[in-house]
Amino acid sequence: MTERKNKKEILDFHRKALGKVRNMPTVNIRNERQLGMAYVPGSLAACAEIRLDGRNAFEYTGRGNRLAEVSNGKSVFGMNDIGPDAVLPILEGKALMLKLFGDLDAVPMAIRAETPEEIVNFCRMVAPTVGGVNIEHIGSPDAYFVERALSEVLDIPVFCGDRQGTAVTILAAIKNSVKLLGISMAEARIVVIGAGVAGLAAADLLLRDGASDLVILDERGILGHARADLNVFQSELAARTNPREVEGGLNEALSGADILVGLSRGNIITKDHIKRMNRKPVVLALSLPEPEISREDATHAGAFIYASGNTEESNALLNIHAFPGIVRGALDVRAKRVSDLMLLAASDALAAIIDRRNLTPDHIYPKFFGSETSPRIAEAVAQAATNEGIAYVPMPEGKVFENTWYRLFGAIEHI
Amino acid sequence: MTERKNKKEILDFHRKALGKVRNMPTVNIRNERQLGMAYVPGSLAACAEIRLDGRNAFEYTGRGNRLAEVSNGKSVFGMNDIGPDAVLPILEGKALMLKLFGDLDAVPMAIRAETPEEIVNFCRMVAPTVGGVNIEHIGSPDAYFVERALSEVLDIPVFCGDRQGTAVTILAAIKNSVKLLGISMAEARIVVIGAGVAGLAAADLLLRDGASDLVILDERGILGHARADLNVFQSELAARTNPREVEGGLNEALSGADILVGLSRGNIITKDHIKRMNRKPVVLALSLPEPEISREDATHAGAFIYASGNTEESNALLNIHAFPGIVRGALDVRAKRVSDLMLLAASDALAAIIDRRNLTPDHIYPKFFGSETSPRIAEAVAQAATNEGIAYVPMPEGKVFENTWYRLFGAIEHI
Repeated sequence: MTERKNKKEILDFHRKALGKVRNMPTVNIRNERQLGMAYVPGSLAACAEIRLDGRNAFEYTGRGNRLAEVSNGKSVFGMNDIGPDAVLPILEGKALMLKLFGDLDAVPMAIRAETPEEIVNFCRMVAPTVGGVNIEHIGSPDAYFVERALSEVLDIPVFCGDRQGTAVTILAAIKNSVKLLGISMAEARIVVIGAGVAGLAAADLLLRDGASDLVILDERGILGHARADLNVFQSELAARTNPREVEGGLNEALSGADILVGLSRGNIITKDHIKRMNRKPVVLALSLPEPEISREDATHAGAFIYASGNTEESNALLNIHAFPGIVRGALDVRAKRVSDLMLLAASDALAAIIDRRNLTPDHIYPKFFGSETSPRIAEAVAQAATNEGIAYVPMPEGKVFENTWYRLFGAIEHI
Repeated sequence: MTERKNKKEILDFHRKALGKVRNMPTVNIRNERQLGMAYVPGSLAACAEIRLDGRNAFEYTGRGNRLAEVSNGKSVFGMNDIGPDAVLPILEGKALMLKLFGDLDAVPMAIRAETPEEIVNFCRMVAPTVGGVNIEHIGSPDAYFVERALSEVLDIPVFCGDRQGTAVTILAAIKNSVKLLGISMAEARIVVIGAGVAGLAAADLLLRDGASDLVILDERGILGHARADLNVFQSELAARTNPREVEGGLNEALSGADILVGLSRGNIITKDHIKRMNRKPVVLALSLPEPEISREDATHAGAFIYASGNTEESNALLNIHAFPGIVRGALDVRAKRVSDLMLLAASDALAAIIDRRNLTPDHIYPKFFGSETSPRIAEAVAQAATNEGIAYVPMPEGKVFENTWYRLFGAIEHI
């Protein structure tokens, strides 16, 4: 298909999709009495219950299943600042994914906001409507400030799809990659290219899972203590990485590396770079829409495992693999926050979907369809929040949490 | 049914309804390729088109059919300030109504906001996501400030359900009442009880439609030039009403009145009040959840026409009769604002649903179900906006605007 024809098909698809998600009534109104029950005066009884105890909102409204999907469009893949009007199709796409893979009611909120403070204020205002807030595509370091500030003022979980979803996805891919390499996480030499929200989050979660030889780069080179141009989040990670004190850029960082994690702006890795890596290079070229290096070039240069964000190829690796399950699990137990232990549990569950016997270099990752990915992640996340004591509605001991499975696979016959 | 059993039934209903509206996917994703089309990288093509021209958001996203349903819960029927947590069931009920009667995707946004400025700021921020903003239950005079301020900064229509929906509904009921009384609008003596958002809006629209003998009261008595305690909106209307310069309270105002419009806090009208009215009293006792006077008492005292907000009785009169059609029509032609001419057209259309031959005192108003109320109002509103030159997408001349009927009655087979 030509590029032009492809673009036309995509735009036609969006025109027909009318937002990708729309409202669906959950109750059928057949007469005036039912109407009075659902609207006025019926609703007032529910209002009164919530007024008595705010937690009743999770009982009598859709709050507990609703997610605010907030973005100002400042950082959208390769497009930089496209603003709130133009970011809407992505938020609607994410809402569709969260519905299909998590039965969540995500509400796109593309907002006019220039500063992190404005975003925080918006989320604080809208919080009573939702069970969780998700911050997307607001860029670095704003995402950090917003997430930290919100975690302090809100008693509902604050998600950051770019950060959490991506980190969990990458950690799971690397867990399965080291199995195939026959080395431990601590032994693996890992290079993360890109020191934005996703890069730092992936590095941080890898460290927490036992990675020890990790190097992070941005467009100016390796993050190390000699760099004076780092923000506070980058400095903090620079201090915990690069144990061999490698200096320089891509060439130096990749010499002898086992695993390359690309979270850059794409097209920056050459065959020569791959050839500098260890005997069985693992190349996760995750930049979108263009990967750091094409599958063809990477394979030519000897890549042992190749993964990208291209959904049509094997090892397609997108944060939506992990994200719907993470949100589902957190909302099911009404987790107060999203902890590292929850993310590590999500990553374990995701990696474990593919049994070790079925692992191959072209299959380190489950397919989107026909798998139980989301429910398994959700269950692991709900269990981790329960174990950590940060669940308002702890998971019942010793049995599968009914809600998770029920919600994902149950019909709506209860309505 | 006992009150207690009734309450239990309502709460059970709300528990099962899970928010009354939930997200529904509009597209079916069957494989990885379609997934890439709907999310990443497909969405980026739509983002790029919108970046080129913001109006493309109405083409490639759900923006044009989405309404922000904003409230801080400061003024909720008889309950006063219940706050954002507790107002959510009503917003969800309204979203259900707007879906069932207008196929609109209304998004409940119960927000933490103390001042009108905060509400304005929130709406300004969220505007890129929606085709219109609806302000509900924020009280008077805040609703005026917010609506005026937003109308200046936004290029999408700003609705105020309490104000516009109620005013249109009342005007339509009075249009049909004067037909039955055999008098003109200008001849009718009308008393509006309640000088909040709804009362002032109803009075204003009645004046614009030709009412000339109108008296407004609040709990302190008739609004007149001697009153020093009025806000600017009340003063402005006081100057245009009460032509006979009646002084006093309910007794004085209702002496010889043809029509009583109750928009107070309920239970304030006695049989004696009704007996003071003209020969064929028209009593619109619209306070919720308790009317100003019961149907039984009003009828005993000689009421010729009685209407209330009770959905189970005849002449049930709620703003949701008119509101979904108003929003539907305005959004279909992308009206820049909601003008008085659009509201007058809506009111004409609503009144005309009942043919003069079928008008009876117990049937001045269409039933919710089995009527074409919403589409007819929508069409009239869209036509009025087009005539006034404030429609971005004018209604095609000389034919029914396909979208309105199509959207309301069309299946979703086009998806």
